[in-house]
Amino acid sequence: MSNGRSPSHKHHKVQTESDSRYEIRLSGSGGQGLIFAGVVLAQAIATIDGRNAVQTQSYGPEARGGASRADLVIADGDIYYPKPMKLDLLLALTQEACDSYYPDLKEDGLLIIDNQLVTQVPTSNYIGFPFVQLAKTEIGVPMVANVIALGAICSVSGIVSVKALTEVVRLRAPRGTDEKNLAALDLGLKLGKKARKEAMA
Amino acid sequence: MSNGRSPSHKHHKVQTESDSRYEIRLSGSGGQGLIFAGVVLAQAIATIDGRNAVQTQSYGPEARGGASRADLVIADGDIYYPKPMKLDLLLALTQEACDSYYPDLKEDGLLIIDNQLVTQVPTSNYIGFPFVQLAKTEIGVPMVANVIALGAICSVSGIVSVKALTEVVRLRAPRGTDEKNLAALDLGLKLGKKARKEAMA
Repeated sequence: MSNGRSPSHKHHKVQTESDSRYEIRLSGSGGQGLIFAGVVLAQAIATIDGRNAVQTQSYGPEARGGASRADLVIADGDIYYPKPMKLDLLLALTQEACDSYYPDLKEDGLLIIDNQLVTQVPTSNYIGFPFVQLAKTEIGVPMVANVIALGAICSVSGIVSVKALTEVVRLRAPRGTDEKNLAALDLGLKLGKKARKEAMA
Repeated sequence: MSNGRSPSHKHHKVQTESDSRYEIRLSGSGGQGLIFAGVVLAQAIATIDGRNAVQTQSYGPEARGGASRADLVIADGDIYYPKPMKLDLLLALTQEACDSYYPDLKEDGLLIIDNQLVTQVPTSNYIGFPFVQLAKTEIGVPMVANVIALGAICSVSGIVSVKALTEVVRLRAPRGTDEKNLAALDLGLKLGKKARKEAMA
């Protein structure tokens, strides 16, 4: 943990966990494949040398509602506390998930939503895509909305490399679903790139 | 957290995390479906009122080897530290996993192994089943060794109810695989029950 008592040295920056720590929550409803997405994202991020990732599912009274979530903590070096404290990135695929977890997002954190399923957005500072709709119309399988979202997260945040993400999606996709999942990833990557360009223009 | 300073009251047992905390690691090689097994087990355990479960995957330098693992921490009430510290139960489906994680098992912890794949067992106090072999010969799908192991863990440890485990396996089994997975669970339940009877005889 960062030691607040040590004097600051201008030319000797010590790499502490808090410098690099990045917290992500993927949320929505059960059946949207958010744990799969969390496992894939964590594994892909950790392919980068020196990066560590811990991916967590919590089940308990608060998880017995309809909202489902997968948490990730990423850091260069050791991760001392493996549960998110204040999110850098929140993906919300349902209104319930957005309502439940938006308070856990940092003030300047990145909110990515399904903009057809989340209709009451608590901020104007978000990026929205119709993930579930696109999964149906573009890929023909509503279940791959999670992987479209992973692609968008990759392009928008840059937290993971396209190469690693593609490899891990291919590795972990259930038998017979790899083509659809890779098409979904490609779509998400393109959507995210377009959104980033628009945000910068 | 348990408060060591409070005086002990004979008739007023305070329920602390450490009273009920139970730590499990499911380990083997990538592709053996251990994360799936961890997710299923955590969700099934948390269906019991008041029980909480946190299920963790860690990716980093130590995870870039061949060993794969899924961790669970279970407690009545809040879980303060979500990563295992000393395991109550270790499932090891490969020699490498057994070698890597046996030192993390409590002295009186429960070691369950695939006794065809783990040939050098570091203790005589273990329970072994040929999970992968049985998955091939009895169910016809080597991939369900993970679910046979879940069934055995259920019968041997009693940490989860048969009903909850069956429900969650059915819910989470990939499309078209639920019959094979339920048959695998049933086989594991029977094997575990038999082993427990033999151990008690």
